[in-house]
Amino acid sequence: MKTDNLTRGSAIGIDFGGTSVKIGSLSQLLSEENNNVRSLKTSDFETVDSLISAMVEVVNEFREKEEIITVGCGVPGLVDFDNGHIHMLTNVPGWNDIALKDIMQKELNLPVHVDNDANCMAYAEYRYGAAQGCSNVVALTLGTGIGGGLIIDGKLYRGSNFAAGELGNYSIDYRGPSNAYGLKGALECYMGNKQICELAENRFQGKDLPDGGWTPEEVTNKAKKGDLIAIEIWDQVSEWLASALASTAWLLNPDAFVIGGGVAKAGRFLFDPLKEKIKSQVSDVIAQDLKILPAFFGNESGIIGSAAQALDYADH
Amino acid sequence: MKTDNLTRGSAIGIDFGGTSVKIGSLSQLLSEENNNVRSLKTSDFETVDSLISAMVEVVNEFREKEEIITVGCGVPGLVDFDNGHIHMLTNVPGWNDIALKDIMQKELNLPVHVDNDANCMAYAEYRYGAAQGCSNVVALTLGTGIGGGLIIDGKLYRGSNFAAGELGNYSIDYRGPSNAYGLKGALECYMGNKQICELAENRFQGKDLPDGGWTPEEVTNKAKKGDLIAIEIWDQVSEWLASALASTAWLLNPDAFVIGGGVAKAGRFLFDPLKEKIKSQVSDVIAQDLKILPAFFGNESGIIGSAAQALDYADH
Repeated sequence: MKTDNLTRGSAIGIDFGGTSVKIGSLSQLLSEENNNVRSLKTSDFETVDSLISAMVEVVNEFREKEEIITVGCGVPGLVDFDNGHIHMLTNVPGWNDIALKDIMQKELNLPVHVDNDANCMAYAEYRYGAAQGCSNVVALTLGTGIGGGLIIDGKLYRGSNFAAGELGNYSIDYRGPSNAYGLKGALECYMGNKQICELAENRFQGKDLPDGGWTPEEVTNKAKKGDLIAIEIWDQVSEWLASALASTAWLLNPDAFVIGGGVAKAGRFLFDPLKEKIKSQVSDVIAQDLKILPAFFGNESGIIGSAAQALDYADH
Repeated sequence: MKTDNLTRGSAIGIDFGGTSVKIGSLSQLLSEENNNVRSLKTSDFETVDSLISAMVEVVNEFREKEEIITVGCGVPGLVDFDNGHIHMLTNVPGWNDIALKDIMQKELNLPVHVDNDANCMAYAEYRYGAAQGCSNVVALTLGTGIGGGLIIDGKLYRGSNFAAGELGNYSIDYRGPSNAYGLKGALECYMGNKQICELAENRFQGKDLPDGGWTPEEVTNKAKKGDLIAIEIWDQVSEWLASALASTAWLLNPDAFVIGGGVAKAGRFLFDPLKEKIKSQVSDVIAQDLKILPAFFGNESGIIGSAAQALDYADH
């Protein structure tokens, strides 16, 4: 682990999710000595203010034990990164128009940076994870939906309105079904968690139904046992994803795709056909150095990425 | 015209094409006083060396009349921008592995920059054309094929192997026909010049066939007369293009798309449905500031963009 920038002090990362807020110290997470991640259940807090107060309290508890010079926060929604103002959060009621950066900076008397959680994941992988040493990286998380973040010339690229990187809203069929935004054939409509489960239901036709119903994990378990239908399901998913990523490779000519999230746990059943289908649809020049990598970090990428960004801003 | 950077001297731009090499001075082209563009016919030169010598001679003739501090060259193919080495040119036999930058710098004793022509077009539009004042721009030329160039955070983005921006190789249908690179459903296979002519042949079914056969211009001429089939052809083309550009907007959240080339001369018949179809497939946040603009420059964009880049490098 490259921890050269931790000499002046550590950073706290806050991973803000729909059900819980996880808070940890970058130095602790990278040293792996003490993964003392604290978790707050969002439903325990009736107001936005009370949840923010609890977050501030936890950060201050970390400060009692080590030198903390900055705080990063990754949130599931649209953020104006420059002023740390949250426009809205997906699946977190009440979090509209919250000046989170200002409020927390005042309470903590520390610099605070607030960014989209997919951007934090991308930064964690670029800075300390699978894409270390790469300059241009497309990172994506495959789960209920599909999130994405872009590293361009060694920096997070957020777009003109901080809305870039939405790989789930990538059309793979101009005549496909419309999603909530009117986009036809959005990748998310083909290979979200729910769609993969439906595909399994259709393909297995009631055969071998697991007790809890089909999940991506159950499809992978079947594939591991050599089940051809399960292997074909991941091959189909890889075809959809390869279409979007081959086009992205033509557009951005990146060093690496980094792929995480629950669906990516299919491992070689997804990655082997995916690599073949991407590389067979791009030029030799684009294919030659292109890496298609599973994410290094799991659930901790939001904490690590938000903290790592904050620390790198503190250094510049 | 913003010509603030021309006080120290002008730059020569060289637009290297399959049939001719056009050479002009940035100050002259921007002042519009004297569009003294020189043209060399590539077929007049038997060897690469003799063509380069002729290019050097023309540049030296420009230097007799005004102070020239740098030279830019845009070429139709893959270039290593850092060392100005041409890997190969599309449709220009014999131009493989040419160290054009080194050769010309030695002959001219001036800094020379060599870049892909679509990148030069993008830079011309960003610096002096339709996308002035924008930070993040996707520029594309619609012609025999489709070329593209990206401006990211105010700089040309070339990708990890100088191969970025290839919007023609953008899949709009994961089950579509394969192109020369194996990509299924590439945009170029739907709306290249030739494909638009074929579409017109199919839709008009022999009716109203122009003397020279169908061309994009003839389709536009029919549309101007209110012909519904011609209007529908441009509507269909806009549907294909909108699919690729809506996805690109979700990915890059740019300020502007700038669209040039022969096919873009369809004007409102292409741009009106295109704008509507892009904006109806992206979020309000992405749509709010997104401009979809015809290119400002025509054939001169290669000269202006290559010269403008060279001059901006001279200033930094």
